[in-house]
Amino acid sequence: MIEVGIVGGSGYGAVELIRLLQHHPEVTIKYIFSHSKANEPLSHTFPHLNHLTYQFVSIEETTVDCDVVFFATPSNVSKHLAPRFLEQGIKVIDLSGDFRLKNRDLYQQFYGEEAAPQALLDEAHYSIAEWSSIKEANLIANPGCFPTATLLGLHPLVEEQLIDLKSIIVDAKTGVSGAGRSLAQHVHYAEMNENLSAYAIGKHKHKPEIEQYLSGIAGQHVGVTFTPHLIPMTRGILATIYVNLNKKMTVEALYNLYRDKYSNDNFVRIRDIGEFPKTKEVYGSNYCDIGVYVDESNNQAIIVSVIDNLVKGASGQAIQNLNKVFNLEQMTGLNQLPVYP
Amino acid sequence: MIEVGIVGGSGYGAVELIRLLQHHPEVTIKYIFSHSKANEPLSHTFPHLNHLTYQFVSIEETTVDCDVVFFATPSNVSKHLAPRFLEQGIKVIDLSGDFRLKNRDLYQQFYGEEAAPQALLDEAHYSIAEWSSIKEANLIANPGCFPTATLLGLHPLVEEQLIDLKSIIVDAKTGVSGAGRSLAQHVHYAEMNENLSAYAIGKHKHKPEIEQYLSGIAGQHVGVTFTPHLIPMTRGILATIYVNLNKKMTVEALYNLYRDKYSNDNFVRIRDIGEFPKTKEVYGSNYCDIGVYVDESNNQAIIVSVIDNLVKGASGQAIQNLNKVFNLEQMTGLNQLPVYP
Amino acid sequence: MIEVGIVGGSGYGAVELIRLLQHHPEVTIKYIFSHSKANEPLSHTFPHLNHLTYQFVSIEETTVDCDVVFFATPSNVSKHLAPRFLEQGIKVIDLSGDFRLKNRDLYQQFYGEEAAPQALLDEAHYSIAEWSSIKEANLIANPGCFPTATLLGLHPLVEEQLIDLKSIIVDAKTGVSGAGRSLAQHVHYAEMNENLSAYAIGKHKHKPEIEQYLSGIAGQHVGVTFTPHLIPMTRGILATIYVNLNKKMTVEALYNLYRDKYSNDNFVRIRDIGEFPKTKEVYGSNYCDIGVYVDESNNQAIIVSVIDNLVKGASGQAIQNLNKVFNLEQMTGLNQLPVYP
Amino acid sequence: MIEVGIVGGSGYGAVELIRLLQHHPEVTIKYIFSHSKANEPLSHTFPHLNHLTYQFVSIEETTVDCDVVFFATPSNVSKHLAPRFLEQGIKVIDLSGDFRLKNRDLYQQFYGEEAAPQALLDEAHYSIAEWSSIKEANLIANPGCFPTATLLGLHPLVEEQLIDLKSIIVDAKTGVSGAGRSLAQHVHYAEMNENLSAYAIGKHKHKPEIEQYLSGIAGQHVGVTFTPHLIPMTRGILATIYVNLNKKMTVEALYNLYRDKYSNDNFVRIRDIGEFPKTKEVYGSNYCDIGVYVDESNNQAIIVSVIDNLVKGASGQAIQNLNKVFNLEQMTGLNQLPVYP
Repeated sequence: MIEVGIVGGSGYGAVELIRLLQHHPEVTIKYIFSHSKANEPLSHTFPHLNHLTYQFVSIEETTVDCDVVFFATPSNVSKHLAPRFLEQGIKVIDLSGDFRLKNRDLYQQFYGEEAAPQALLDEAHYSIAEWSSIKEANLIANPGCFPTATLLGLHPLVEEQLIDLKSIIVDAKTGVSGAGRSLAQHVHYAEMNENLSAYAIGKHKHKPEIEQYLSGIAGQHVGVTFTPHLIPMTRGILATIYVNLNKKMTVEALYNLYRDKYSNDNFVRIRDIGEFPKTKEVYGSNYCDIGVYVDESNNQAIIVSVIDNLVKGASGQAIQNLNKVFNLEQMTGLNQLPVYP
Repeated sequence: MIEVGIVGGSGYGAVELIRLLQHHPEVTIKYIFSHSKANEPLSHTFPHLNHLTYQFVSIEETTVDCDVVFFATPSNVSKHLAPRFLEQGIKVIDLSGDFRLKNRDLYQQFYGEEAAPQALLDEAHYSIAEWSSIKEANLIANPGCFPTATLLGLHPLVEEQLIDLKSIIVDAKTGVSGAGRSLAQHVHYAEMNENLSAYAIGKHKHKPEIEQYLSGIAGQHVGVTFTPHLIPMTRGILATIYVNLNKKMTVEALYNLYRDKYSNDNFVRIRDIGEFPKTKEVYGSNYCDIGVYVDESNNQAIIVSVIDNLVKGASGQAIQNLNKVFNLEQMTGLNQLPVYP
Repeated sequence: MIEVGIVGGSGYGAVELIRLLQHHPEVTIKYIFSHSKANEPLSHTFPHLNHLTYQFVSIEETTVDCDVVFFATPSNVSKHLAPRFLEQGIKVIDLSGDFRLKNRDLYQQFYGEEAAPQALLDEAHYSIAEWSSIKEANLIANPGCFPTATLLGLHPLVEEQLIDLKSIIVDAKTGVSGAGRSLAQHVHYAEMNENLSAYAIGKHKHKPEIEQYLSGIAGQHVGVTFTPHLIPMTRGILATIYVNLNKKMTVEALYNLYRDKYSNDNFVRIRDIGEFPKTKEVYGSNYCDIGVYVDESNNQAIIVSVIDNLVKGASGQAIQNLNKVFNLEQMTGLNQLPVYP
Repeated sequence: MIEVGIVGGSGYGAVELIRLLQHHPEVTIKYIFSHSKANEPLSHTFPHLNHLTYQFVSIEETTVDCDVVFFATPSNVSKHLAPRFLEQGIKVIDLSGDFRLKNRDLYQQFYGEEAAPQALLDEAHYSIAEWSSIKEANLIANPGCFPTATLLGLHPLVEEQLIDLKSIIVDAKTGVSGAGRSLAQHVHYAEMNENLSAYAIGKHKHKPEIEQYLSGIAGQHVGVTFTPHLIPMTRGILATIYVNLNKKMTVEALYNLYRDKYSNDNFVRIRDIGEFPKTKEVYGSNYCDIGVYVDESNNQAIIVSVIDNLVKGASGQAIQNLNKVFNLEQMTGLNQLPVYP
């Protein structure tokens, strides 16, 4: 059995790891770390797990002996704590933003904190699981929720050099759990219910993450317009992606490209022509569903990509990355069907 | 024009007073008080009012000169501040719980704070607007949201001595705005959405308030079982009230009793036999809709009573009470139809 | 492998069976029947299952060869179709109401249709899985959603003769999926959102079902007051149950009774004294969480019981019953943790 | 008093007209027409109006004598019925799409029905109230909900020739009430709740409406990319509009342009730089709130525009247009503040 520890145990990322790993035949949870809740039972924080007997432990007071540690923490935590695990030969899968950006200045600009040391950033493997090769990796930077939906939607087009790289607009929508479990006025139920807004226009942390990845494929700098919106629902991300095609292309051709690119990827489901995915159709599962559209009158393509932000956009992809690192079949422990309705 | 001030200007009670008074032909808002936001524009806290030019003022720094002051504050504020207005001859309408309970020990027990002085409590008029007589009143204790729905539903039965006073069970359900605007984990959107719970069983502040009022009508101590539930919606209260009838009674007789008792009360709408009100049918309005049911096999009656907790359960009834005190027609400024859908 | 067929394949009961059985190591789905959708792919009706290749088949046109058939149909279907399977030696687990009531007149009165033949009703085993003994059963009447939450909450008290049997009041609340997938004005999103109502007061089909079961334990007729409410959420039932105790009893004693009665039942979790369960704490899982309260001043007990109406209240319990019939461990395939948040 | 009739009385447009006109000092509702509900009381369909005594009447059986008729009907109704009122000298304000498109072929293509006669289309005045001049008009085509939010957001930029007309992308989001009151699987509560989708990509009726209007200002054909999304909430539209600027422009300059253009329009509120409106901030009111953003690195502007689809996007703007036609102050009867929270 692969023994894992989870840091940031009182947040949504951790609790989703616990739920999903319940079905993983090769993994056992050894530690659930929480600084603020150390020595309390897990069930005080999460009554829905009241039959489990885990207790939060403090990283400081424990000699950690396991194979992998997940960080399901806010940014600015893992960059301080990850080295001690790596030094012990424990692999680290980081769900936070600390190891995603290779450029320390960009991190400083968008996260408002000093970045991790360059050496660590260089060591980190940013892993959209369908596209990465991480068998030797010790430190995995698990992608952000918006980037996951966006990059799975854009990768084929950029790789095949089919679009005007200056034309990319990502209008993204997310459920409220993406904001985490911390309290804030705008996510108070009475404020958020029956409400809809755009936020962080031009300033969201996931913008440079998307740009870095696309630039890597394109071999040149790619900028994107990225506008996130907050939707009155708990889970789900839908990214509506607008691009100008370099040349005439039918919707059938685009559809075939996507089918082909993802033919070996069980978690990416390309929807039939004329059909567009809804967030509820991936709820609670690790699927990313993608629908494609072409306006032949002006060579514009529209890609609609949906994920569950807490699964494929966080904990599910983290487990998928673990599976890759440990040479397991990618779907191991991740075969949950969407919860519907 | 009647000039009013509103204390607690950054909360939901205040903002609903502002909305409703917009349509009141005889009232003008002179002050909106807020300690924490003093000197800030109202629109910083409430962007939906960004065309209004009000500024929050501090009570401490203002010489207040107006006719009425509304307290839309948490408990434990008005008992300290009301006297200074009363002394100036300014009427006080208190939407908080500070002047509702006549018994200081009960206040201490349920509110966990020392009660207002007995003399002030004696002076306060608790006013379910349909049943009270407050023309001479200077200090009005505006009823709680649950008590308003419950007492409008129970008053006719208790007044006519038709029920076993030991049998009263009130199973009450409320939208989340009843918990106010303050942050708390359980009203965080992602926790509250798709969720439903009972809370404060046997301990809710509104239990002694209901008991005090019913005891007053009955001329003897009346105890009630009162169980509040939190519903994933913003506005609305529905009280399902179970009582044992003293004697055989048809549903027609019960219906006629209610029609008769409320024949002069525009805000109380008795629904046809077999029809039960939904909270959305009073949304944003000052109506209380009531449906009645009798199980003749066991002489049990069920009363379903709905209000908008922020209107009839708070700010609307406060304005209705103002209208009574100033000898205005009760519906003045309160003729909003429910917002539907 | 146990081969199963599912009748009523286009409804919520069926789609939840499909989701849960995904994790069942001993069961394989052989048929998904639908009359109206025969020969269509499952994914046309349920795009969230677009990677599955099932096709709906018509019962009429198929020679059914399997071990068990689930009926996830509206009432008035299984009573006509079940006999043909039973005659072939295929076990039937019926999620509809057709075989729940032993009294044909009551069925006629509450369902408005003629009941199944008495012989079939006599053969049917009504199975609240925690309390039943069904190893030899061929025809299982899977309990209704409200009865499941209610009866798990009431069984210990009635069995131990601790309450006044005339005093039982069940104030029940359900999410909208309990109304099924069929269209109706009151479950249109814009009508149902931000809305709350009581319905079918005194007339709900689950009232005689609850009464029949309790009467069976008590050895005498037990009547209950049962009032369902519709809550603006998709999943979840919360039953608030009020009973008068026969004698003085502390909350500790009541708590210990429940802990004891359910000590071998993994799916029933008795919550600590002073803690009451929320529906989201069992979302997507087969758990029933119960909290207990005693008002010692008047010997009244309040039991709060929550389930996911589509899992423990329907498809989950149906699989639990299958496990019992086939001598499998009860939790086989049902170890999903609640989806939170 | 201006006497009005409302056709399509059982839909959301009608019921919102009734709510808003309640506060209009110069208008009285004389008729509420409904074919399917003729002779039934209004309150059977809308129990929230159970104190009103209106009865639905059939257009066929009534001699209509009033000043204005509102059509709050699906498309394909007013084009048949409007002429009879116009001939009698009764003004018509049409909330449906029948008179919006001047080009009969486009109507045929997008509505799938034959268009109204060209003469009638020529007579109709399409009226975004802030920008139109309709004092002499007899037939008003009230704009669609998406076009209202979009065109108020785009008009200044197009009028001032500041953008590349080929670059316009409108990513629009709407609450469910925009789909009307008719039943459909995708707006069933359990399907729509916690769900989010794009729909009608490239095919929505409001696309040619937006294009026709913009072309009119620009003096040349303007095409737009228009992608609507369905959001799990009842009311509200948010349009996120992306355009390429012709030349360098600061956000301050853009902000000042909008402030200037709408300086005399009470219902359009330009939000401070860096602030973007939320749909709840206009809930239940006739306001359109607009926030502007400029990315100076690539000369792209983003405009965020929000309205309540049933008020400014339908019935509120219809009353605003009535006010214009009858030379009343635009805000008459429309001074409702947003309902918050």
